Amino acid sequence: MVNLFWADESGLPVNDRGLAYGDGLFETIRMQGRKSVLLPRHLDRMVRDARRLGIAVSLKELDAVARQAAERWGSDDPSKGWVLKLTLTRGAGGRGYRPDAGMTPNLLVACGPVPPATADEGVVADFSSVTLSVNPLLSGIKSLNRLEQVMASRELDGAVFELIMSNPAGHLVEGTRTNLLVKSCDGWLTPPARDLAVSGIMRQWVLERLRQQGEVVQERPVEVGDVLSEFCLGVYLLNSVLGVVPVRNLAGRNLPVDGGLATICNPFELLE
Amino acid sequence: MVNLFWADESGLPVNDRGLAYGDGLFETIRMQGRKSVLLPRHLDRMVRDARRLGIAVSLKELDAVARQAAERWGSDDPSKGWVLKLTLTRGAGGRGYRPDAGMTPNLLVACGPVPPATADEGVVADFSSVTLSVNPLLSGIKSLNRLEQVMASRELDGAVFELIMSNPAGHLVEGTRTNLLVKSCDGWLTPPARDLAVSGIMRQWVLERLRQQGEVVQERPVEVGDVLSEFCLGVYLLNSVLGVVPVRNLAGRNLPVDGGLATICNPFELLE
Repeated sequence: MVNLFWADESGLPVNDRGLAYGDGLFETIRMQGRKSVLLPRHLDRMVRDARRLGIAVSLKELDAVARQAAERWGSDDPSKGWVLKLTLTRGAGGRGYRPDAGMTPNLLVACGPVPPATADEGVVADFSSVTLSVNPLLSGIKSLNRLEQVMASRELDGAVFELIMSNPAGHLVEGTRTNLLVKSCDGWLTPPARDLAVSGIMRQWVLERLRQQGEVVQERPVEVGDVLSEFCLGVYLLNSVLGVVPVRNLAGRNLPVDGGLATICNPFELLE
Repeated sequence: MVNLFWADESGLPVNDRGLAYGDGLFETIRMQGRKSVLLPRHLDRMVRDARRLGIAVSLKELDAVARQAAERWGSDDPSKGWVLKLTLTRGAGGRGYRPDAGMTPNLLVACGPVPPATADEGVVADFSSVTLSVNPLLSGIKSLNRLEQVMASRELDGAVFELIMSNPAGHLVEGTRTNLLVKSCDGWLTPPARDLAVSGIMRQWVLERLRQQGEVVQERPVEVGDVLSEFCLGVYLLNSVLGVVPVRNLAGRNLPVDGGLATICNPFELLE
């Protein structure tokens, strides 16, 4: 059981642990009218990540809430895009950092606009000066502890769509709000799940789709050399709300842009 | 200028970035009646950490709010302890992780009870299984990104007062809610500021006080061997609300407990 809060009616309790400590999770789900994109995967991830944090929530209750939200905010017109945001926290109170046993989680449900679509010819990206420190205990979890992403995104300006962060080992890991996919002569390449701050739903879906098509996909550390070498055939940024975004220029260097991936992987055809 | 919210009247806006991303800071200040303990240091740290995150707040406005809070919640009786909590966030809204330029920060002001005092004969502590990953960009900052501390504190039970976390290099760094101070044959020893997740006010004050007394204080990485060797003359946990807490047993090993430090450093005599 969760306590449910609709953002157009009320906020979370003033002593909610989401605010106090970032003690919770969130999902942003692309909606079209009353239809959703990859909703079951988003809800699965939230349940799985919640279990890692010791927050009890069931798929059934999240699914019921998402359906209510679609009715509440979605129109009949599937061309009307919006974003459904679910914020799940461990609940309110506790003794400092230490949660009480058997707390009831709080679930805040909100809607927001879709960001502007990116151009088909691709976007400009650069390297971030912010190093990503991923605690293995929390790797991949879309938690409310996102200060590194905030600090990195402060360096974004209008001309640069995304900044790619490295880890202390110097490997490229992910953008502020996107996962990284590289096309090389040897196939597709993406950083391994254990290194990720956020393990994206779009990444998961695109990797599966590529493998279904018989493509070779390697999950291994990505070096700067992998994306700036002549063997790099393309760099893509993956995001649940924006889909597959090709990079046409990375750190001042032009990259080949191939519409092929968007053809294989158009998540917005997947309305459910 | 900040937007001010009194927790007994209202919470922060539903789209506040403190909840969304842990994009903010907090301070917990020990109060006695209308008097405070080390208040100027707390406010200094909040201003300094806010500057590191790019959040604009002035010492003057924080000080005025703390004084109002003391009037609002404090009694005439300085034996009545309570805790003043200030939560400062970057504000509400923004485009995803990226803040808007010139956002107005939100400041939530709350009061809470003092935790039970610890016994003079000391407490029981153990090592945490949670490794601390400190991003140098955020080291020492008392930000709202505290999931590591939450996860570590879930392992606390009634018998164990504190769990000490290590970093990936295997050095002991700090407890879930305390900084670490070790007394050895060579003087006092504490992990260096750059390694800390939270650089505590009580730590800062105790180190200064020890140096004023002519004691030798080393800031260097602390190994497990430093606290479990026969040369260890005492282990202390430092916390703004609880003061100086001696450890009588660490990981099943009895430690000498010396009341001397509490005599040199009794912060609760410092009412302002």
